[in-house]
Amino acid sequence: MRDPYVAAMKGVLHTMCPGAQIEDLSHEIGPQDILEAALFWAASVPYFPPGTIHVGVVDPGVGTGRRPIVLQVDDQVLVCPDNGMVGLLLHCDDTAECRVISHPSCRRENVSATFHGRDIFAPTAARLAAGFPFEEVGEAIDDYERLELPAPTLREDGVLVGTVIHVDRFGNAVTNVHNGALNGRVVQSVHAAELPALPMRHTYGEVDAGEALALVGSAGYLEIAVNQGNAAETFNLTPGSPVEISFA
Amino acid sequence: MRDPYVAAMKGVLHTMCPGAQIEDLSHEIGPQDILEAALFWAASVPYFPPGTIHVGVVDPGVGTGRRPIVLQVDDQVLVCPDNGMVGLLLHCDDTAECRVISHPSCRRENVSATFHGRDIFAPTAARLAAGFPFEEVGEAIDDYERLELPAPTLREDGVLVGTVIHVDRFGNAVTNVHNGALNGRVVQSVHAAELPALPMRHTYGEVDAGEALALVGSAGYLEIAVNQGNAAETFNLTPGSPVEISFA
Amino acid sequence: MRDPYVAAMKGVLHTMCPGAQIEDLSHEIGPQDILEAALFWAASVPYFPPGTIHVGVVDPGVGTGRRPIVLQVDDQVLVCPDNGMVGLLLHCDDTAECRVISHPSCRRENVSATFHGRDIFAPTAARLAAGFPFEEVGEAIDDYERLELPAPTLREDGVLVGTVIHVDRFGNAVTNVHNGALNGRVVQSVHAAELPALPMRHTYGEVDAGEALALVGSAGYLEIAVNQGNAAETFNLTPGSPVEISFA
Repeated sequence: MRDPYVAAMKGVLHTMCPGAQIEDLSHEIGPQDILEAALFWAASVPYFPPGTIHVGVVDPGVGTGRRPIVLQVDDQVLVCPDNGMVGLLLHCDDTAECRVISHPSCRRENVSATFHGRDIFAPTAARLAAGFPFEEVGEAIDDYERLELPAPTLREDGVLVGTVIHVDRFGNAVTNVHNGALNGRVVQSVHAAELPALPMRHTYGEVDAGEALALVGSAGYLEIAVNQGNAAETFNLTPGSPVEISFA
Repeated sequence: MRDPYVAAMKGVLHTMCPGAQIEDLSHEIGPQDILEAALFWAASVPYFPPGTIHVGVVDPGVGTGRRPIVLQVDDQVLVCPDNGMVGLLLHCDDTAECRVISHPSCRRENVSATFHGRDIFAPTAARLAAGFPFEEVGEAIDDYERLELPAPTLREDGVLVGTVIHVDRFGNAVTNVHNGALNGRVVQSVHAAELPALPMRHTYGEVDAGEALALVGSAGYLEIAVNQGNAAETFNLTPGSPVEISFA
Repeated sequence: MRDPYVAAMKGVLHTMCPGAQIEDLSHEIGPQDILEAALFWAASVPYFPPGTIHVGVVDPGVGTGRRPIVLQVDDQVLVCPDNGMVGLLLHCDDTAECRVISHPSCRRENVSATFHGRDIFAPTAARLAAGFPFEEVGEAIDDYERLELPAPTLREDGVLVGTVIHVDRFGNAVTNVHNGALNGRVVQSVHAAELPALPMRHTYGEVDAGEALALVGSAGYLEIAVNQGNAAETFNLTPGSPVEISFA
């Protein structure tokens, strides 16, 4: 929020939909980091009341051919560029409906080549919030971008191999191993980097302060953490670091 | 706000208390830094309208035995883990009332072991905001955690010795010496690190740009600052650095 | 927002104007950076609905003789210290009206020497939002601070020489060369630092990922960028770096 971009979008939202209630969700997704945006939405969108309109502007392709879209997934509405940032929300809903934003009332009079957040996405969200019908935003499409999250693989020796996909502010290294992929099997230990085998626990405080552990985090993914410490810094874990899970 | 944790809490708040007005106060308290959280609340809570509900989730003990609590202090309501983060608000109010959160309607259906902000604290705040009676949240307790702020000491030679307890974003080094501890005595000079004796002033602009000074900050604590500069960086002051105050 | 300053202001706003709708615009303007604040306001204020009240507290002179002011520019109201931070909004409006804040109801009972955001600016904004007449805030003045933005100069050989004035979060280096200063001439190339001549484009994605370009950004200023990269870091561009524009 050092820059005026978010403020300009809020101004447009209030101008085009007086009385709208706006919540800041994140302005710190890494520049051009579509995967991070997708993980963010997957872990936050489902908690909002039906009909909430979410605006996402991670938009490396602004001003090029990439399409601006609206999506209805479950009971939530998403407004964003067609680049896959909605991808991790889609597996829960086969009935998602997507439209390309094209109605003239869904854009400002002069659309810049570099800031569609202000000129297209905020106006569209404002119109929808003010009651403009989803069906009139533009043509329905089915070939919008999905997102391939790297899947964990099962090795011949029975070890499940995943990777770190996100490091949170506390230094917890979140992996691509979803709780569901464990299939209810009992995890014996988790290996990452040159770490000794880590115990699987339910929460941070079950090991001593400064000790490392593995656990299933609040969004359902296996993560590596240090109780009251920073696992990613301590063990040099970054997105892409491999993680191995052994079962009992 | 890089992570989806705050967004998920906002979703829960809006879902369980439609129409709630939410303000972001801080999402940058240091991980597990209970003292910083306590100082933050002490300097902000008293300015809010009666009945405001404050949610605080600095929660190193999440999922362990530490209790989730609600507190009524003066005319404000606080929802947080029982770890002392309310401590610096309590000296103003002997009538504070504390309850352990236990009513089933004050939690989400499935409570995770690692994110009570989303699963207990936000739901409780939403219920209270929607009119749920404070008395029904859970059992009243009296043995909740207080916080021991290190107190300044008076040396035999009459010098008051305190410590830096917080460095703000401007680099001002805030100490544990409250205005009240000066007892109205006239400060002659303030010493810290290898600094020359600093003059006591009322505001930054009373010394030249780049010059150091001591003053009583807006929350009532003595601080060391540099006019239009960063005192903490310049003089390597960090929480724990000793500060000596000489009286006239 | 690590510090309690913003939270205290929000508390005062809600206390003095119940029901006020507050939006966070930025809490990351560099300490004492009046030019950055002015650029921020110039690129965001015009997008808000008529009658919006903007509060800005970049205030190195707090507690000294600098005056607290309110300004009506076009249909927006600004509340801030008289230090030039409104400067870049003024060229669009000769009818701007400025008043010094002096009415007793526009301040808290005890005004500190170091935090007029909480004690004067937030109270004034709250009063105005609650219907207090602009004309009664205080005496009208005309000698409030303007701001001299360094202007680009035209060299004898026809090259326009500007400077970088801001680096945004994406690493784009924004210059003081406004679209208007190009006078519709066709830019042949842009030079900065030891960079080869950069092509002028309309948007980032018109060059390959990792390639540098020049373009007119969404606020109308020429900027130097790298598609999906960080131009300022890559080329060591900082405020003050010279930029040369050659015309066809």
